[in-house]
Amino acid sequence: MKAVFAIADGMGDRPIKNLDDKTPLEAANKSSLDRIAQNGISGTLDPISPGVPPGSDTSTLALLGYNAPEVYSGRGALEALGSGVDVLGDEVAFRCNFATIGRNRKILDRRAGRIVNEDASKLSLSLQRVKLSRALNASFLFKSTVQHRAVLIVRGPKLSAAISDSDPARTGVEPLRVKPLNKSLAAERTAKIVNTLLFEFHRVLESDPVNKDRLKRGLPPGNVILCRGAGTVPKIEPFSQVYPGIRGACVGATPLTKGVCRAAGMELITVPGATGTPQTDYMAKARATVQTLKKYDLVVLHVKATDVASHDKNAELKVQVIEKIDEMLGYVYDHTDQESTYLTFTTDHTTSVITGNHEGDPVPVVITGPYIRKDGTKEFGERTCARGGLGRLRGKDIMPILMNFLGKTKQFGF
Amino acid sequence: MKAVFAIADGMGDRPIKNLDDKTPLEAANKSSLDRIAQNGISGTLDPISPGVPPGSDTSTLALLGYNAPEVYSGRGALEALGSGVDVLGDEVAFRCNFATIGRNRKILDRRAGRIVNEDASKLSLSLQRVKLSRALNASFLFKSTVQHRAVLIVRGPKLSAAISDSDPARTGVEPLRVKPLNKSLAAERTAKIVNTLLFEFHRVLESDPVNKDRLKRGLPPGNVILCRGAGTVPKIEPFSQVYPGIRGACVGATPLTKGVCRAAGMELITVPGATGTPQTDYMAKARATVQTLKKYDLVVLHVKATDVASHDKNAELKVQVIEKIDEMLGYVYDHTDQESTYLTFTTDHTTSVITGNHEGDPVPVVITGPYIRKDGTKEFGERTCARGGLGRLRGKDIMPILMNFLGKTKQFGF
Repeated sequence: MKAVFAIADGMGDRPIKNLDDKTPLEAANKSSLDRIAQNGISGTLDPISPGVPPGSDTSTLALLGYNAPEVYSGRGALEALGSGVDVLGDEVAFRCNFATIGRNRKILDRRAGRIVNEDASKLSLSLQRVKLSRALNASFLFKSTVQHRAVLIVRGPKLSAAISDSDPARTGVEPLRVKPLNKSLAAERTAKIVNTLLFEFHRVLESDPVNKDRLKRGLPPGNVILCRGAGTVPKIEPFSQVYPGIRGACVGATPLTKGVCRAAGMELITVPGATGTPQTDYMAKARATVQTLKKYDLVVLHVKATDVASHDKNAELKVQVIEKIDEMLGYVYDHTDQESTYLTFTTDHTTSVITGNHEGDPVPVVITGPYIRKDGTKEFGERTCARGGLGRLRGKDIMPILMNFLGKTKQFGF
Repeated sequence: MKAVFAIADGMGDRPIKNLDDKTPLEAANKSSLDRIAQNGISGTLDPISPGVPPGSDTSTLALLGYNAPEVYSGRGALEALGSGVDVLGDEVAFRCNFATIGRNRKILDRRAGRIVNEDASKLSLSLQRVKLSRALNASFLFKSTVQHRAVLIVRGPKLSAAISDSDPARTGVEPLRVKPLNKSLAAERTAKIVNTLLFEFHRVLESDPVNKDRLKRGLPPGNVILCRGAGTVPKIEPFSQVYPGIRGACVGATPLTKGVCRAAGMELITVPGATGTPQTDYMAKARATVQTLKKYDLVVLHVKATDVASHDKNAELKVQVIEKIDEMLGYVYDHTDQESTYLTFTTDHTTSVITGNHEGDPVPVVITGPYIRKDGTKEFGERTCARGGLGRLRGKDIMPILMNFLGKTKQFGF
């Protein structure tokens, strides 16, 4: 018995007037998802708890069965892990953005015009050449990931993740000075190292040929690094120990979700054409999932595009992305042995195309596979699933249910 | 107001192809259960938590309202209590099997051909005559219960339940040497006592006339004792203190469930003809329940047969057993005053007739009685109950609900 666990990031939503009071999922043409729901058991999940808007990191931790409020230790280290960068016990990692500031030092664009991977990668190499003074007794690693996204890891003795963000999360203001969040020497020291680095990074970026070229082409330069989400690696038991013998792999594009899977001990599968954007190669991911399932027991298939469309408040795009995901999952469903495969599909959170934010509404979920108590759900949607046979569960409940179908849960008692 | 709490062991199941994709419960003719559902409020329970396959001991603890993960302390002491043997604070009790080993010491039959009570009882008396050396500073009690089942209690100072099993849980291998599971002197000492006992038991059994006679009759001798599930008595508040004034009794046949009820301070009612097998006298249990309810406020009515059929992967037998239980509960329902009696019916766990194992799927539950919010459920089954008015609850939630209907719960706050 094997399992595919598919997650469409931020797919859950609220009814929208322009969609005849339907959610984007309800409004989409989704014959495959409906077929899966008809052959499965549906329900809803509160990723963390009712009304709490989860992040993709905390929700993915929960969907993998971990107690997120207990084990979550910040975003930075997860994003770094997902970018293929190793983060060890004491190291502090940050999620970074290439951003654009003007001459008055105020932020013009928090994503430097969603700078392309190639430019960000070149700038990243320049930043890695920055030398820290010996007195700071620390080293760092800076690496761009997808578009404007990057990770920074600070290494050395006596570091702390109790550090504020330099990213003010809005434009029109200056980047913030990083501050220690407690009075420990480690936090003070870490803040000092990061402030020094960010100052040096800005100096290097201002004069970098890549940015000069971007200006010539009328593109916003990536002339400052904004950092946020200081974190360490969460201390969690590997998935293969929680469920002995399970070999897990992740087919995904965004570092954050991949990082959670890697922190859980799963393999990351790289799929050419998987970009984490609405233009991602959905069918390449579908084929990669089917292939990967031949070698692994559990494949986490993650698509970011639904969340991107939601944050951009683009309902029409969100509907289109869901229709692509429908095709993708139809392929996976039709190309896996339904007698020996359980397919679960859900989303890590509701992202409202009206507010553009993660919201606390529960999300729909379906499990299909042999010996499921099919519940007669006709359509896959937020409201149809709310009447399904699974009822309303927590995010962390779904993995034990799936692993029980795979015969991997231990009996408690006799 | 009084209550009957009926539990059909392992009755929950998954849809089965040979039963038109129905579960055994859904496939059974069960007019009484359906009538009870029509007059009650239904729902589903996760005995422990979603996806976790419970044992009968942990689940019954939960169904009586206790926090099983917190209070559970092993099977052995519960099974002993249920066999009418007293187990005190420091004593360590084991669940044992009479089993058959060959000349090469390998296990041929873990149940000695499901040895009959009479033979096991005689062998048990021989074993009780074994003398432990004074140096071990311990005594023991060995008692056969039903068929191949028995309990062993080790008494003396400085004992520990952190002891491995001698039962390898399969045939074709030798019984295991019991090992301490931690480095405490108590665990080492207990392991030594148990290994000594098991060695002596084997010696006695090999030459016992009962076994010689069994060999003559072509039956596998009970020539070795396999022990497992070392445990102490769980430290729980008696049921009559949790719900002041409630006098509880248990009508059941299997020591494990009876032991949980006894640990909770309930009386055990012996019913002639109640065997814990599919051939049990269902109607005798029904009559005993109605009689017992005259003297007690709560009667736990437990039937093991559904679990036996499930472990034997016998769907047809499971359907037949459910139909017998239907008759039994119909009698109880019709012979109790519906104006003053609440009847709850559920099962302690799902046991799949396909896997033969306890599984983590939720179980159906119904409560009927005066002032219930009847929910219009038409049939009693896993999937119909999943749409019922109780929703999806945890096992430990149901007893407070029932006791509240009996007016026995305390208000929290003013």
